[in-house]
Amino acid sequence: MNEPQNIVILGSTGSIGRQALEVVRALPDRLRIVGLAAGSNLELFRQQIQQWQPEIVAMSDAEAARKLIEYSIPNLQVGSLEDVASWSSADIVLGAIGGAAGLKPTIAAIEAGKTIAIANKETLVAAGELVTRMAREKGVPLWPVDSEHSALAQCLVGEKIENVSRLTITASGGPFVDTPREGLQHVSSLQALKHPTWSMGRKITIDSATLMNKGLEAIEAHWLFGVSMDKIDVVVHRQSIVHSLVSFVDGSVKAQMGVPDMMLPIQWALLRGERTCGAPPHLDLATLSKLTFEAVDHERFPCLGLARQAMKLGGVAPCMMNAANEVAVQSFLDSRTNFYGISDCIAHVLERCPRVERPTLDDIYQADEEARRLAHEYFSA
Amino acid sequence: MNEPQNIVILGSTGSIGRQALEVVRALPDRLRIVGLAAGSNLELFRQQIQQWQPEIVAMSDAEAARKLIEYSIPNLQVGSLEDVASWSSADIVLGAIGGAAGLKPTIAAIEAGKTIAIANKETLVAAGELVTRMAREKGVPLWPVDSEHSALAQCLVGEKIENVSRLTITASGGPFVDTPREGLQHVSSLQALKHPTWSMGRKITIDSATLMNKGLEAIEAHWLFGVSMDKIDVVVHRQSIVHSLVSFVDGSVKAQMGVPDMMLPIQWALLRGERTCGAPPHLDLATLSKLTFEAVDHERFPCLGLARQAMKLGGVAPCMMNAANEVAVQSFLDSRTNFYGISDCIAHVLERCPRVERPTLDDIYQADEEARRLAHEYFSA
Repeated sequence: MNEPQNIVILGSTGSIGRQALEVVRALPDRLRIVGLAAGSNLELFRQQIQQWQPEIVAMSDAEAARKLIEYSIPNLQVGSLEDVASWSSADIVLGAIGGAAGLKPTIAAIEAGKTIAIANKETLVAAGELVTRMAREKGVPLWPVDSEHSALAQCLVGEKIENVSRLTITASGGPFVDTPREGLQHVSSLQALKHPTWSMGRKITIDSATLMNKGLEAIEAHWLFGVSMDKIDVVVHRQSIVHSLVSFVDGSVKAQMGVPDMMLPIQWALLRGERTCGAPPHLDLATLSKLTFEAVDHERFPCLGLARQAMKLGGVAPCMMNAANEVAVQSFLDSRTNFYGISDCIAHVLERCPRVERPTLDDIYQADEEARRLAHEYFSA
Repeated sequence: MNEPQNIVILGSTGSIGRQALEVVRALPDRLRIVGLAAGSNLELFRQQIQQWQPEIVAMSDAEAARKLIEYSIPNLQVGSLEDVASWSSADIVLGAIGGAAGLKPTIAAIEAGKTIAIANKETLVAAGELVTRMAREKGVPLWPVDSEHSALAQCLVGEKIENVSRLTITASGGPFVDTPREGLQHVSSLQALKHPTWSMGRKITIDSATLMNKGLEAIEAHWLFGVSMDKIDVVVHRQSIVHSLVSFVDGSVKAQMGVPDMMLPIQWALLRGERTCGAPPHLDLATLSKLTFEAVDHERFPCLGLARQAMKLGGVAPCMMNAANEVAVQSFLDSRTNFYGISDCIAHVLERCPRVERPTLDDIYQADEEARRLAHEYFSA
């Protein structure tokens, strides 16, 4: 038996973070928590600290961090997100902080040479070129945690990337898969938050309703696997059993399937592709009965097309699209805009996108800020 | 570019053999024919010889072989099946001679150290222990050509066999998937020969109607992958798009999919797992629409259970089951017995199975002969 791997979880109180702790709990001989970071959920975070006894922790919310320090828990170091991400004894850093906030600590972890389990779509969407280049230079592997990218990576095990003819990402279709365009104009955020198959955070659930999540995932797949965007497709698969498919040049197609549950991709990433019995539930093939596949209706769901457009523009465009989407989704959640207000806002921001070749981290932060400003402006106009 | 691989096709005038020649035709830089063997179809075989200019050929039908020698084609050596199978310049031997007749030349090829592309189910069913042991000792890889086993092997690429929790072989269900038991008692061989998705030889098509093909495939999978029979399942999948599935200990499932066409598994085997554009058609995922999965009805289709029973008995039982099935299928094709006469005959023969541990080739031939005698006796009683 090997020594257990030392794990840092960035975003431990979120949906992915909590499930990651379940995975670690099921494999005490393989995985050990050394660092945790969270946002502002102080109560849950204190429980996690008590239970997992990490060496270092951080909270991104300054007020919560201050209170945490006041508790003065013995043998516990409280630092910044970057301190946790680059903690010396850590082997693997799970980046599960949602939104653009996940970028900086992920980069800190890469710079410290940590293996990355990447559960934060926006990191690769906003800074895919930069992050994958840094990871390559540092010899740091990026293990996908999204179920779709985990599926693609699993189908690619033992295969050559140059033999791939197509990556097909599956989409549940979200709560509005059958809602006509006229109906979509009037859906509420409450309706959008009822996702049929996956239980996730609020931001991601809205992204799943607009299919922007699939746009982000297509971009993420491009950077993770080095496959060009015109070879990356999305197909609606309502059952969320087939998590994605890889087509090869010889006509063969591989699909990865499983219960719609994040435990499996989290475990697969934390074990760096090793397989063992653990927390993930098992798929009963006898109960499958029917798997369906349908084309995406781009007229009703324009976000996927906007993501492709952003990738074609290149540079900081995907970053700005992502930032605009974050602002627009929040506006929708706050009932300050309707369903198509999200895509309209993104289109508005993309039209104002500056050309930046091979953006630096500063370019990316600046573009992110500018996109948020433009998006807020759009909604207050 | 590597030198082309030298290919021998045993059974070149059959369905698999002819498709293998299409695969070779599409990849002239990768594959070259050096030997061909056929049964009695002299006319087609002469055309193949003219077109492919092999170095050595054989015909198992003595009369056909005699005529072939009379043509005295320049630079062509006519030998036995074993001579072709062990031909010195051959790298890969495709064993595509149906029935028990394929066993001897396959063993000759293994003894000569050739890589085997195995399209003959019966070889592994009748002599799985012997053939896989010999292949292991000789360091000879066995590449499956059956679409189901190719699917399993493709799903296993880069994975560890000890991490497999289940192999699931898909079955189209055959022409009688919806026929009630009473109806099955009266189906004709003509009805059985109308297979919904796969175009194959007559023997295999009847095996597909009784689901005995799945029994043979389960046994074959056991020997090819070293997975115990209780971890090998069969599921009815009418569309024949998912060719088989592998479940892993962590709950992940991989499926291999493709157009129902033998070109892909043939090419994958002849290229020893390499992928390249070639003869196989490509699957259009957008046209998939619906994939269904159903449990096998063992009451209507008892052959699958008989195959499991034979494996449990071990020794020469699978060999005798296979031989009894060959005789029974011929009786059914000749309208001398009905649909359930096939399974009844196999059950009759299995009851009279002697116990033989680790059978030798002689034991296997003797058991094969005895089973055929018992089966003929059963039908003439």
